[in-house]
Amino acid sequence: MGKEEDLRLVDNYQKELNLFGGIGSLLNWDLEVYMPNNGSKERSEQIALLSKLSHEKVTSDNFFNALKRLRKEDLSENESLMVERLYKDVLKDRKLPSDFVEEFSRVSSLAFDAWKEAKKKNDFNIFKPHLEKIVELNRKKAKYIGLEGHPYNGLMDDFEEGMTVEKLKPKFEELKKGILELLGKIKSSEAYKSQKKEVFEDKDFPREKQLDLAKDVMERIGLTGDFSRLDIAEHPFTTKPSYDDVRLTTNVRESPMFSFMSTIHEAGHGLYEANLPEEFRNTSLGETPSLGIHESQSRFWEIMLAKSQSFWEFYFGKFRENFGFDNFDKFFNEINMIEPSLIRIESDEVHYCLHIILRFEIELGLIEGSIEVKDLPEVWNNKMKELIGVVPESDSKGVLQDVHWAHGAFGYFPTYALGTVYSSQLYNSLKREMPEIDKDVEKGDYSRIRDWLKKNVHQKGRKYLADEIIEQVCGSGLNPQEFLKHLEDKYSKIYGL
Amino acid sequence: MGKEEDLRLVDNYQKELNLFGGIGSLLNWDLEVYMPNNGSKERSEQIALLSKLSHEKVTSDNFFNALKRLRKEDLSENESLMVERLYKDVLKDRKLPSDFVEEFSRVSSLAFDAWKEAKKKNDFNIFKPHLEKIVELNRKKAKYIGLEGHPYNGLMDDFEEGMTVEKLKPKFEELKKGILELLGKIKSSEAYKSQKKEVFEDKDFPREKQLDLAKDVMERIGLTGDFSRLDIAEHPFTTKPSYDDVRLTTNVRESPMFSFMSTIHEAGHGLYEANLPEEFRNTSLGETPSLGIHESQSRFWEIMLAKSQSFWEFYFGKFRENFGFDNFDKFFNEINMIEPSLIRIESDEVHYCLHIILRFEIELGLIEGSIEVKDLPEVWNNKMKELIGVVPESDSKGVLQDVHWAHGAFGYFPTYALGTVYSSQLYNSLKREMPEIDKDVEKGDYSRIRDWLKKNVHQKGRKYLADEIIEQVCGSGLNPQEFLKHLEDKYSKIYGL
Repeated sequence: MGKEEDLRLVDNYQKELNLFGGIGSLLNWDLEVYMPNNGSKERSEQIALLSKLSHEKVTSDNFFNALKRLRKEDLSENESLMVERLYKDVLKDRKLPSDFVEEFSRVSSLAFDAWKEAKKKNDFNIFKPHLEKIVELNRKKAKYIGLEGHPYNGLMDDFEEGMTVEKLKPKFEELKKGILELLGKIKSSEAYKSQKKEVFEDKDFPREKQLDLAKDVMERIGLTGDFSRLDIAEHPFTTKPSYDDVRLTTNVRESPMFSFMSTIHEAGHGLYEANLPEEFRNTSLGETPSLGIHESQSRFWEIMLAKSQSFWEFYFGKFRENFGFDNFDKFFNEINMIEPSLIRIESDEVHYCLHIILRFEIELGLIEGSIEVKDLPEVWNNKMKELIGVVPESDSKGVLQDVHWAHGAFGYFPTYALGTVYSSQLYNSLKREMPEIDKDVEKGDYSRIRDWLKKNVHQKGRKYLADEIIEQVCGSGLNPQEFLKHLEDKYSKIYGL
Repeated sequence: MGKEEDLRLVDNYQKELNLFGGIGSLLNWDLEVYMPNNGSKERSEQIALLSKLSHEKVTSDNFFNALKRLRKEDLSENESLMVERLYKDVLKDRKLPSDFVEEFSRVSSLAFDAWKEAKKKNDFNIFKPHLEKIVELNRKKAKYIGLEGHPYNGLMDDFEEGMTVEKLKPKFEELKKGILELLGKIKSSEAYKSQKKEVFEDKDFPREKQLDLAKDVMERIGLTGDFSRLDIAEHPFTTKPSYDDVRLTTNVRESPMFSFMSTIHEAGHGLYEANLPEEFRNTSLGETPSLGIHESQSRFWEIMLAKSQSFWEFYFGKFRENFGFDNFDKFFNEINMIEPSLIRIESDEVHYCLHIILRFEIELGLIEGSIEVKDLPEVWNNKMKELIGVVPESDSKGVLQDVHWAHGAFGYFPTYALGTVYSSQLYNSLKREMPEIDKDVEKGDYSRIRDWLKKNVHQKGRKYLADEIIEQVCGSGLNPQEFLKHLEDKYSKIYGL
């Protein structure tokens, strides 16, 4: 076959794979949002069928051979990059034997059910044999993938392309050290010792008002009704049933901060997906390069903006109007209150990365073989004491709290901390370029920020790796010092350090 | 391959085809109900991809050859019937060359857009060339299918398996004659001459109350939240995204009768789908045999029950409470008021079948060649005058009112009248078997009716053709006299004939 024919074949394959992907997104969205309970059995079969069809397509010889031939052709820069990204993906997928893929899927499906039961009954032993299999399968997977360096690299690469243990470990050490130092200062401050939660007490936060505010901020961030929507799900998430259709979910809980902040977080993800480059639509270059940089977008809006003073200069008025808050300082300090938490997703901004580093260290130990699954509850609790300073009284609130391992995902957790650090680097660059941007934020006008992110991050698609994009925009790749500086500046003020 | 292997293959094919079908239903449901506008382009590509995959599967030699081998094997009664139904379907699908199928799909897609424009601009000429192609393609299709007798049989068979022009035409003549006679009597009555619409005037029908009532009646009919839901769409419909997940839609208009009656209609369809035989799940016997019998279920609830006096003995109280109606007789007579209508879907129960017969006669003429597309507006208006007694002043309210021809569907319309007649036959059988059933209805208790329909219709799946089921339950196949008798009895009372 000639070059043009091969390019057409590759285009068609990518197109169909993307169509399958969109359909799968809708099936999952509906499952979480509107599906009647009894639909679940057949829904999982529908999802499995689509996965099978996609997998067959990705790993087909037709596709692989066309890519191999194209790699030897004289291609334009973008074509060549598109082929390289795809070739790498396909090669990885083809390295995993199909009976391994099936076993992985079967084992993690059972593990997920066992995890739910274990968490509910607070009994790690129910999950233990399943997690042992999952660790074993992940070690096997790392071998099949066979990237250079640490075996964990082959796992992390699924979520954070190009990132390695060799690069990441020292950065996480740096981050850990800095955060612990700052926490030491905060915790010995007078303000910390006398802090108390009060502003959300004895107030009523009607569901409709919470959702109105969530929709308001989502629109201001740039997600309008012609291409996006907000629904209710048990756990907030963002998905894209097709290229021009980005859907967010949130949940309404007691404090209005949950629906509001989770919508902002998801809007960051959603805006990224909505702004991917049209010219690379349905190709490997029209994707996002990693979960870490994806998370940098959600964290940018959630933490860098929506936890800043300028942001609340605008939104406090709306919160006062709807919910009757009266004291700005008390409100602002309380939503930024530092307090050790047992649960990762309830953590404040300063402790958050320590929760991630804890999981990263445990995953490394499990893959290296220096930690055994049976010892996990003990290892977990010791590390909690060392890093966070609190110890869970139950495994449900400890080692069993997250779903990721039950899904078989090892190498996923680091992306949360990467995103957090990246978000601070992006924010600093924005501020250097537009020192007066706070004035916009104080007026609830995020249009210049949106355009800046679109140009500097979103429109690059997967032409570059996450760290390359950060380097282009921020002058250096992953740099924990920028995040530490942000924390130091912000919390010195709040805690009077 | 051996018998067992072939049966397994056929089972797997049916299973996958049903999974594709369910996924397709969800894609369409979402499109009508929740999808942001911009999603439409890619959604149609997703739907087209699924159709392609399904069509490839249905018409594959593997499948066909397995069916051919199985037809010669010694099979159980149900297996044999399952194979026969499938073989017939596949044979029909394989008779249509794939370039014909593609052309049909392309032409009707363009015709749909042209029809929308023509209807909006009230200009039949915009639609004319497209409809000409559609008629030509349908005549071609009839030849490819090549059933015995009238060429229209091959078209109608897609919607009403086993029904033929030879059988149907005299029944429709009988129906037309009877209805016209009854209408003559009604229209010369004093009650008709002095009737006026008044009970819905100057009242407020809040959206939430309308939806509460719709949900109430849907649940009483038997569609509960564990396997069904009700949403809002522009045009009410029912769909089944998976075997245990039946979704209804309605719309809220000025009169609360629209949301209420359309929900009851859709609930009749939904209950049928929900009650199909579990033992034949994912096989050709677990389907419904025809659109006519499907419509008999919606019309049973909508007309036989929800327009009866007993039904309103229960629901009038709720309507009074919510909307402030005060006079039962006026209310009941007005919701059963006979009045010629230009629009099929706004027609009363007596005129309704005349609208269908008009379309049936035109379709026959177009397929036979005795009517030309260019003359349609004139033919339409003449027939309207003859059958309904009113003539539309615009084609938008005349020949352009329905979408069916724009979709390429010829042979579909008769199923509406078939369903209506069948519903009266079923209702008469129910009454013979349970003469006291009105007492249940007066209490809003439909459980015995639901069970009776389940046993006598729903659980038969596609083991029998529609007319066979009606014969088993009602003692004879299609019988217009039973419907005419129902009309005569009911409207003699209302109009004092």
